[in-house]
Amino acid sequence: MRFVRFALKSGNIDQARIGALSKDSSQILPLDALCRSGDLLDLIGREAEAEALAATVTPIAAADATLLAPIPRPARNIFCVGKNYHAHAAEFHRSGFDASAGQSATPDFPIIFTKASNTVTGPGCEIPSWLDDSQSTDYEGELAVIIGKGGRGISKENAMDHVWGYTVANDVTARTLQKDHRQWFIGKSIDAFCPMGPCISTVSEIADLNTMRLTTHVNGEKRQDAVIADLIFDIPTLIETLSKRLTLEPGDIILTGTPEGVGIGMTPPVYLAKGDVVSVEISGIGLLENTVA
Amino acid sequence: MRFVRFALKSGNIDQARIGALSKDSSQILPLDALCRSGDLLDLIGREAEAEALAATVTPIAAADATLLAPIPRPARNIFCVGKNYHAHAAEFHRSGFDASAGQSATPDFPIIFTKASNTVTGPGCEIPSWLDDSQSTDYEGELAVIIGKGGRGISKENAMDHVWGYTVANDVTARTLQKDHRQWFIGKSIDAFCPMGPCISTVSEIADLNTMRLTTHVNGEKRQDAVIADLIFDIPTLIETLSKRLTLEPGDIILTGTPEGVGIGMTPPVYLAKGDVVSVEISGIGLLENTVA
Repeated sequence: MRFVRFALKSGNIDQARIGALSKDSSQILPLDALCRSGDLLDLIGREAEAEALAATVTPIAAADATLLAPIPRPARNIFCVGKNYHAHAAEFHRSGFDASAGQSATPDFPIIFTKASNTVTGPGCEIPSWLDDSQSTDYEGELAVIIGKGGRGISKENAMDHVWGYTVANDVTARTLQKDHRQWFIGKSIDAFCPMGPCISTVSEIADLNTMRLTTHVNGEKRQDAVIADLIFDIPTLIETLSKRLTLEPGDIILTGTPEGVGIGMTPPVYLAKGDVVSVEISGIGLLENTVA
Repeated sequence: MRFVRFALKSGNIDQARIGALSKDSSQILPLDALCRSGDLLDLIGREAEAEALAATVTPIAAADATLLAPIPRPARNIFCVGKNYHAHAAEFHRSGFDASAGQSATPDFPIIFTKASNTVTGPGCEIPSWLDDSQSTDYEGELAVIIGKGGRGISKENAMDHVWGYTVANDVTARTLQKDHRQWFIGKSIDAFCPMGPCISTVSEIADLNTMRLTTHVNGEKRQDAVIADLIFDIPTLIETLSKRLTLEPGDIILTGTPEGVGIGMTPPVYLAKGDVVSVEISGIGLLENTVA
């Protein structure tokens, strides 16, 4: 299923509701009866119940609703992976913005950092580049993994049993802050610098993870185009790497890295400007579109 | 006041209570009536109430209680600052373990990373070095700042108005993971790798922040000894730096960095071993002691 948090355009945007998108995305099947908390994570492991309820409810036209961030306030920072596509690792290495660069462009071990939870926003929300005092705001279209079942010491072989679903994320980055502060956290954690959505697509929705295609457009111009199979460290490896050291929890979010085609990959670097529209799309999940403010 | 979370040795350790330490630390003045949630953060801004209640309650002998982590599950990752004392910046630079080293040992901007919230433990809890598959566990005694009033765009001049208090922390680190993964998060975020306590000492308890002395002993041998005045980036600068980019929240924790004298500063490096006792003490707050398992 593709679960969504939403608010009716005619109602109070603070009154988030939950539901599932219909196959053609034209309708939302409200599932509030399953979970009055409005917390999508309460649906983990309850797809059968959700399917049964969805078959009985009165649909809402998607056009009448505003989609919200699926997980608006993660219980801890978002795990992120750096330089996890070969071509992007090379372009970032060349750019001179990687303060933690080693000898080679391609990392020997996954590079893991975090974005603070205050960064999360939803589809259609503004990206406040005016908060970036370094004026070097860049996009990074990414596949986000949502953990369903926690644990420590999860092997690669069992890792996919711990994934609940996927969403689309834009790991918006202040490049000069990322560089100047050496560790990337501060350049990655400006308020509202992590749009996510439009839905959580559960694992059963995805026929083949490897052929999922990620594309990013800025003002309609294609900038990123890659398949998930191009990841240097695949999802099982990332789950094994993290859970070898820390206990993963349901609702944890892992951004798996961005492919080639970011703004600092260009010569000279091209940053996002007020009014730019950034659209990240992943097949099987959907489109995440945000305007730069 | 010096606020504590505690459990009676005769009772259930899961039933955390809250209180204040007496001047000589021999007694705990229970303050549960102020806050049934058991969450010390609910006492922010309520010192007058707490003082009044403390004067009326029946004390508990500190010997009858186990002190617990003051903030057992932070609402987001712990903010940490790297290389923030001159002599330590030099020793870490020399050690070869800093994958994000620039040209100079001393950073031009604060180096900020995070520890996951699963790392928090309390006084007396074990440091599970057996979870560190790189077998390079090291200590870092640090002053932790607890934010009382949140905000964005907090100036240095106003920064101290946003501090509620302080605690002692040990930023336990797996050095080889810190190095191999380039970004420091994973080497810093092993389960239970952040002992904190024994109390939150509110700002009114601290006569002069700059003369506060931090010492770390391992098995009784002094390893670290510094005054907080030696910070490269002081607390107001750290708060200004963070809040310029992200909204700080009550209960946020900032580890301000560790002084010279960590295990990798020695030649050859000396790591923590099973049975080692690490004691971090800061004047005006107290002693945080943990045994390595």
